[in-house]
Amino acid sequence: MARLIEELKKLPGVGAKTAQRFAFHILRSSDDDAAALADAVRGLKAALRLCSVCNNVTDVDPCVYCSSPTRNQRLVCVVEEPTSIASVERTRGYQGVYHVLHGTLSPIHGVGPDQLRTSTLIARVERGEVDEVILATSPTLEGEATANWLAGTLRGLGVRITRIATGVPAGSDIEYADEVSMARAMEGRRDL
Amino acid sequence: MARLIEELKKLPGVGAKTAQRFAFHILRSSDDDAAALADAVRGLKAALRLCSVCNNVTDVDPCVYCSSPTRNQRLVCVVEEPTSIASVERTRGYQGVYHVLHGTLSPIHGVGPDQLRTSTLIARVERGEVDEVILATSPTLEGEATANWLAGTLRGLGVRITRIATGVPAGSDIEYADEVSMARAMEGRRDL
Repeated sequence: MARLIEELKKLPGVGAKTAQRFAFHILRSSDDDAAALADAVRGLKAALRLCSVCNNVTDVDPCVYCSSPTRNQRLVCVVEEPTSIASVERTRGYQGVYHVLHGTLSPIHGVGPDQLRTSTLIARVERGEVDEVILATSPTLEGEATANWLAGTLRGLGVRITRIATGVPAGSDIEYADEVSMARAMEGRRDL
Repeated sequence: MARLIEELKKLPGVGAKTAQRFAFHILRSSDDDAAALADAVRGLKAALRLCSVCNNVTDVDPCVYCSSPTRNQRLVCVVEEPTSIASVERTRGYQGVYHVLHGTLSPIHGVGPDQLRTSTLIARVERGEVDEVILATSPTLEGEATANWLAGTLRGLGVRITRIATGVPAGSDIEYADEVSMARAMEGRRDL
């Protein structure tokens, strides 16, 4: 029981009390339910792995994007997390592939460049397999720092490096834009 | 009383009931208060006018921006309303001047190009007094239509025409970006 509680406490947002409640729930549930949960946990790790090319979570290696013949394998969109891919896919306009960093630079949380998964990306660029790297980390403090650091690392390797636009969100009035987004919208203005 | 209620009903968001409540409030208030309100209404129109250069609301003509020796008079930011100027000024980074359209194209509300105040802007551009026109209407349906129409009107007059950037707002995670803003952020990506 104590061992289960210790393991459950490792889940995000689960403290000692919640872990205890989970453990007692499992204790009271049927043998089948408990076995099903254990199998599902074990099965997830057995079935899912990280794509050896782009670090996306996948059940086949390379992942669906990296093995797609219709996608432009020379256009790579760098994102923070596997879940970020959904944001780009929702636009239905992107036809390139991805590279997942699994995090952002964050000195406060002790995350430096060594903790980010960048080696396969840098290797692909060095082998001349990439025309353009789109840095699609979030326009947050950590996301910007990560984009700037990665741009510096890739510079000089003969690849085009671009950053997604920050600005006023579509459909909203500029009167409601925060000043940083408005400043970025002015700086990032484009010729019509 | 009926005449006052009719006039008050013309205020935005004020219907018959609210107008009646306002009218009764004025009826019960002191003679001084009623006179002060009447004077303030009359005084506003007497003191404030539209800048003859940019259509901004002002008490001096030309307005503080159009008469400023430290502002770049050849860089013109086109906005929808006088209140939009505050959004751009808050960025503290803009050193040009403005042009206020007092509206956006909106066929549904019967607003066509003739209802927008564009003549002084077009005249300035035609006289070669402007290097760049920044179209800073909101990235809404009406704002985009207005920007596109104005770009078409100014094209060929030898002026640089730019549009403010639409994209993911600063400080927000791309996972929370709507798909149109995300698509614009990808399309509008910039070289680093």
